[in-house]
Amino acid sequence: MAAGASRSRSPAAPVVTLTTDFGTRDPFVGIMKGVILCAAPDARIVDLTHHVPAQNVVAGAHALASATRWFPRGTIHIAVVDPGVGTRRRALLVETAAGWLVGPDNGLLSLAAPSATTRRILDVSRSRVRLRPVSRTFHGRDVFAPVAAALAVGAAPETLGKRVRTMARLQSTAPRRHGGRLVGEVLWADGFGNLATNIRRSHLECADFRGRRLSVTIATHVLPLRPSYASVPRGGALALINSSDLLEVAVNGGSAAERFAGRPGSTVTVSPV
Amino acid sequence: MAAGASRSRSPAAPVVTLTTDFGTRDPFVGIMKGVILCAAPDARIVDLTHHVPAQNVVAGAHALASATRWFPRGTIHIAVVDPGVGTRRRALLVETAAGWLVGPDNGLLSLAAPSATTRRILDVSRSRVRLRPVSRTFHGRDVFAPVAAALAVGAAPETLGKRVRTMARLQSTAPRRHGGRLVGEVLWADGFGNLATNIRRSHLECADFRGRRLSVTIATHVLPLRPSYASVPRGGALALINSSDLLEVAVNGGSAAERFAGRPGSTVTVSPV
Amino acid sequence: MAAGASRSRSPAAPVVTLTTDFGTRDPFVGIMKGVILCAAPDARIVDLTHHVPAQNVVAGAHALASATRWFPRGTIHIAVVDPGVGTRRRALLVETAAGWLVGPDNGLLSLAAPSATTRRILDVSRSRVRLRPVSRTFHGRDVFAPVAAALAVGAAPETLGKRVRTMARLQSTAPRRHGGRLVGEVLWADGFGNLATNIRRSHLECADFRGRRLSVTIATHVLPLRPSYASVPRGGALALINSSDLLEVAVNGGSAAERFAGRPGSTVTVSPV
Repeated sequence: MAAGASRSRSPAAPVVTLTTDFGTRDPFVGIMKGVILCAAPDARIVDLTHHVPAQNVVAGAHALASATRWFPRGTIHIAVVDPGVGTRRRALLVETAAGWLVGPDNGLLSLAAPSATTRRILDVSRSRVRLRPVSRTFHGRDVFAPVAAALAVGAAPETLGKRVRTMARLQSTAPRRHGGRLVGEVLWADGFGNLATNIRRSHLECADFRGRRLSVTIATHVLPLRPSYASVPRGGALALINSSDLLEVAVNGGSAAERFAGRPGSTVTVSPV
Repeated sequence: MAAGASRSRSPAAPVVTLTTDFGTRDPFVGIMKGVILCAAPDARIVDLTHHVPAQNVVAGAHALASATRWFPRGTIHIAVVDPGVGTRRRALLVETAAGWLVGPDNGLLSLAAPSATTRRILDVSRSRVRLRPVSRTFHGRDVFAPVAAALAVGAAPETLGKRVRTMARLQSTAPRRHGGRLVGEVLWADGFGNLATNIRRSHLECADFRGRRLSVTIATHVLPLRPSYASVPRGGALALINSSDLLEVAVNGGSAAERFAGRPGSTVTVSPV
Repeated sequence: MAAGASRSRSPAAPVVTLTTDFGTRDPFVGIMKGVILCAAPDARIVDLTHHVPAQNVVAGAHALASATRWFPRGTIHIAVVDPGVGTRRRALLVETAAGWLVGPDNGLLSLAAPSATTRRILDVSRSRVRLRPVSRTFHGRDVFAPVAAALAVGAAPETLGKRVRTMARLQSTAPRRHGGRLVGEVLWADGFGNLATNIRRSHLECADFRGRRLSVTIATHVLPLRPSYASVPRGGALALINSSDLLEVAVNGGSAAERFAGRPGSTVTVSPV
């Protein structure tokens, strides 16, 4: 009865996530799901977001990188922010320690696949499983979805493309020390207007910051570092360590992006009080 | 072969719904789904809405309460509209006659869990299944998702938290009689601009209204009570009993919220003609 | 052990898609999913779009028709853009060569069900599986969702309604020849502002266009026909054959709808250079 037992304990269906700048007005995302379900009827498809700002590869890379660690090992993440679709930019399948990434070779996948944890990079531009003809404008449907679906039903990765050594990588900026202060920058604003920065919790646990009261400056505004949004009155501004372990500038019940005209690249400084 | 037969007829996967004010620009909702699927790979996750107005607990409570009855018995509903995240407000798991609710103890769950049908209330703030460390800003991921997932795979509720007697409850206002009229108020506007009120179908079936022609007044506008949007010409205003059995003020093909500057709390009156 | 083997290779769960103008602010779509999962717990539900412009049957018909061919054979597509809800317009279940369509009889289903591939049309207005009482405002929940769910779990279509011969059909306009030019029109703008037209790839492969350089005119602007968005510099305008094999007017990294004030019905002309 071992066979029967193994049947009754079948492995969980593979999870496939989608991150795009397609929006949800058009059926593009639904069409990708149709293509995935044609080849992988048991795939569990999860939307990360389809509202990456149009063609903003950096914003898409941050969104993807902030989410992948929360998914089951082996999850397949498709990402499509693809201003170069139809050109000679490659299509990639990347294996990391945590799972798989599928998307264009324009840096979009790179923050979720740091060099240290990248295991394999495959060029799937001309994968045997791509839909034919491949359109010049919708590789999400014609290349990325079929590659992810084939992987989801157990295709050997090496049969889906050819091994390559490198991929396009975004430069990630680290905060720098300046006098007794730490100078970083805003990475992105979330939908509430909270401003996430490149300053990590670990940066604030360095010897000369640890245990001291700290304040955070954006533009000319000096904000207290507090544990939660509700640590200040409604409408009050603060900094906190957010759920991704990043220093964040926020307004309780409001938008820090509006209040401080903060945007990606805006300078944020941490100083002992 | 009874065992084999029972295996082949496994119970349906549990349904888990999500209601939040997170929007869909950021991957927060996707991250919650990842956490759920890590612990409950077979869960069927359904979005109710992620566009509850930011931090509007009352609107979220109405949205949740209008939807739960349409789901299979035993469905687990997670709701997160949580201005108090990071404070001492409790996290709750609530059993009702129809299923389960998971979310903050701020009234959000209360309209879907009337006292009469509430069976158990558990404080899951420090549940054994929470992710650790629990962030100060994202209990949807760190507390509510893992509790719902544990329940979905069959954990005994009593092992997920400790029994408590009460939960925060929103005051629900009933319409009042004034002379021969019934005076109620707008509860919320839906995405079409239709204005749902606290006047129920049953209120209009009382002895002195039943069988009479009725008119509905909002601001200074007197509207006919009709069966469907298409009962008046395009652009015409009317009142009707909506699909939740609530009196609704509407404009056929337009927005009553705009036309009548209607918003939650606006007075709506029903009178015999 | 044949029985065991057949159990372990159960047919894939049926796919049910949703196309509506409900938006995602309210829980209407979630409620429809709840109703579907009550009757068909294994259904795999996929959103095509819920942002069809309000009550725009033509836009909804195009969205649906552009997506259905990408789904597994037998997929059940529910569409609800339904200004006549509550009137005597019929509710339909339509079988095509590719799958099933469920929705109001107002033309919405017609572009996805050309006469040549339509196999059966059933009036399901008073289907035995409808929820009772049927509301006057929400047939997506009360009629279309239960009919689709019954079909998904194997109900014989003829038991769900009564055969009828015809359905409402939208007029589809074909481009016309005028001198040496081809004169078509914009069908819809997608979320990026790309303008899809009724001119198909096949129209450009006719004898007198094939192999010649072509230009495309919208308003007074003459644009080159190129293979992909990135064939022109960022901000540049072009025409291309889009992923649905339709001629499309686009701006690389921008909105053609804004640039050219293009909307459904705007004239687009193709001429040899």
